[in-house]
Amino acid sequence: MKFELLHKDPASKARAGKLTTAHGEIETPIFMPVGTVGSVKAVTQEQLREEINAQIILGNTYHLYLRPGLEILRQAGGLHGFNGWERPLLTDSGGYQVFSLANNRKIKEEGCVFQSHIDGSRHLFTPENVMDTQRVIGADIIMAFDECPPYPSEYKYAKQSMELTHRWLDRCIRRFKGTDPIYGYEQALFPIVQGSTYKDLRKISAEVIASKDCLGNAIGGLSVGEPEEDMYEMCELVCDILPTEKPRYLMGVGTPWNILENISLGVDMFDCVMPTRNGRNGMLFTWQGVINIKNKKWATDFTPIDANSPCIATSKYTKAYLRHLFAAGEILGMQLASIHNLAFYLELVKEARKRILEGTFAAWKEGMVKQLRQRL
Amino acid sequence: MKFELLHKDPASKARAGKLTTAHGEIETPIFMPVGTVGSVKAVTQEQLREEINAQIILGNTYHLYLRPGLEILRQAGGLHGFNGWERPLLTDSGGYQVFSLANNRKIKEEGCVFQSHIDGSRHLFTPENVMDTQRVIGADIIMAFDECPPYPSEYKYAKQSMELTHRWLDRCIRRFKGTDPIYGYEQALFPIVQGSTYKDLRKISAEVIASKDCLGNAIGGLSVGEPEEDMYEMCELVCDILPTEKPRYLMGVGTPWNILENISLGVDMFDCVMPTRNGRNGMLFTWQGVINIKNKKWATDFTPIDANSPCIATSKYTKAYLRHLFAAGEILGMQLASIHNLAFYLELVKEARKRILEGTFAAWKEGMVKQLRQRL
Repeated sequence: MKFELLHKDPASKARAGKLTTAHGEIETPIFMPVGTVGSVKAVTQEQLREEINAQIILGNTYHLYLRPGLEILRQAGGLHGFNGWERPLLTDSGGYQVFSLANNRKIKEEGCVFQSHIDGSRHLFTPENVMDTQRVIGADIIMAFDECPPYPSEYKYAKQSMELTHRWLDRCIRRFKGTDPIYGYEQALFPIVQGSTYKDLRKISAEVIASKDCLGNAIGGLSVGEPEEDMYEMCELVCDILPTEKPRYLMGVGTPWNILENISLGVDMFDCVMPTRNGRNGMLFTWQGVINIKNKKWATDFTPIDANSPCIATSKYTKAYLRHLFAAGEILGMQLASIHNLAFYLELVKEARKRILEGTFAAWKEGMVKQLRQRL
Repeated sequence: MKFELLHKDPASKARAGKLTTAHGEIETPIFMPVGTVGSVKAVTQEQLREEINAQIILGNTYHLYLRPGLEILRQAGGLHGFNGWERPLLTDSGGYQVFSLANNRKIKEEGCVFQSHIDGSRHLFTPENVMDTQRVIGADIIMAFDECPPYPSEYKYAKQSMELTHRWLDRCIRRFKGTDPIYGYEQALFPIVQGSTYKDLRKISAEVIASKDCLGNAIGGLSVGEPEEDMYEMCELVCDILPTEKPRYLMGVGTPWNILENISLGVDMFDCVMPTRNGRNGMLFTWQGVINIKNKKWATDFTPIDANSPCIATSKYTKAYLRHLFAAGEILGMQLASIHNLAFYLELVKEARKRILEGTFAAWKEGMVKQLRQRL
């Protein structure tokens, strides 16, 4: 995997780059749609490629481990073979889902014991077997097994959790280096900075993570309920420590304005369920602001969300029709809203990248953040 | 509206034709996907056009009348303007839904009083206002208001119901002729043959309907629970009476083998929710037979449903992946199954048409009906 830093914005810490993987190139900054169980919810792969212009999508190790399970994934030639997505893939480590979805989880030094949210069956995730699992899934970028502490966390808990994450990281790296990719192409392991909202912990964690000299680095444990200002403060502090020449991935973030703000702090990669999850609930993100399409005010608005968009969901279907689909409980409403939101997120990072390359990002970002937050 | 009969199969009563409407041509025999509330469930219009090759789709008057309602439809320029579908549209009269979905319905000579299944509000459908409603919806083909008796029905009830349908038809025709299209293009009214499973009633009804000299004719009240043999017997009897030079539409039918059998009896047009409804439930219709994709046997079948199909849902996604999507409750499973089934239905009638034009339909149909019914 290769990362080229193409340009730095003169008036912010924003960067434009290019990440090359075995399954293709990724232009950064990038947003990565989340394909939880091997499917970006309500979106076909043709739509991901042709309407949304997704360059890389995520899979969730926790979900894929439970269903379809490793035996089927191995037989299919990994997730690429299983779902037919030919572009780059990234998998998380399952840590976040174990802590947010699974039942009766118990964290030990060895790893985490939990019960499946589907059938209650008992499982153990360790740094080692999570690496093995991600070898089987076969994503281009795989994540270290970490603990993501909730917000707020007591300082003591946050510190112990961070130290556990660091010890788990060493075990991840050992296992990762001791094993080969199964399907013949390179996988890159990204470690994850933790430390909750404590500056000294974030600093320590960023230094530890930077010292591992991995091909890319991630920031976890943010956008979990803390004020936006805390997120930005932690993100900036960490970005200033993480190596410049490696891609930086801020996990689970966020709104369109969160993304622009964090790009300006030096983040290169983002993922979030928000465009799809909120989309399925009728919330649309647009260049002019946020639309709740279920609102009665759209019932007779026969204009599309944005007539100039290259995305068909955005430019062809009217707001009145979309509102009707949600009012009538039609699946197509969820589909169109998901496609629109993802296409918008990808347009947003594309435009940000163009501005960075032009050297006009910082001023553009200031105005845009205000506009994107508006409720229409 | 113009119907050209291009060829009759020498060994059956199958016909190939071309129906020309203000929104384009329809090659018959044709299957029409059902877009209940103005959306073919879980399918985008791009997919309808490009993957499924739908030539005409349906809307349900009952549903559209309740939601989004006539005021919005009128403002949008009718259903074409509202949902953006530029090809031909057909609407049913609402009769079937009033009798199957609405609450506290009461049939009177004047029409039918019912309560909305959505909010319990009271409404009255009459032959006259159903014509007016279908003028507002603006489909190219609109249907007469009829009563569709359940199966089985007592002879006496079936006869009275049929006679009411005939009286309502005269009122429909009067209103239809006394009003103009709202959006500047022609609409055609199709009357509906009823008569339950009674041969003498079907004969009377077909003669009455034929005598009205409408631009096309429909057969209703079949595929409502009667044995397949009864359906075929009634259909043949009716087709033999309906005028040759007008298109014949068999409403609400059916399975792939039902469609081939009824084509061979002289039917030109079909609609049914089966490909989408059963698709959403994991039932796939294929050239080789019927697949329940939820079955465990498909979990490691890494072949597509049909590698040679032009439909992406059919040729690109594997059975194992599709089964996984259903097992995990992913919306994408419903989407792909709906697209596949509709594309298959459209391929089926296209192939039937080709065989009719070649003169090889009857023998092909015999073998195909057996094959299509198999459970894989």
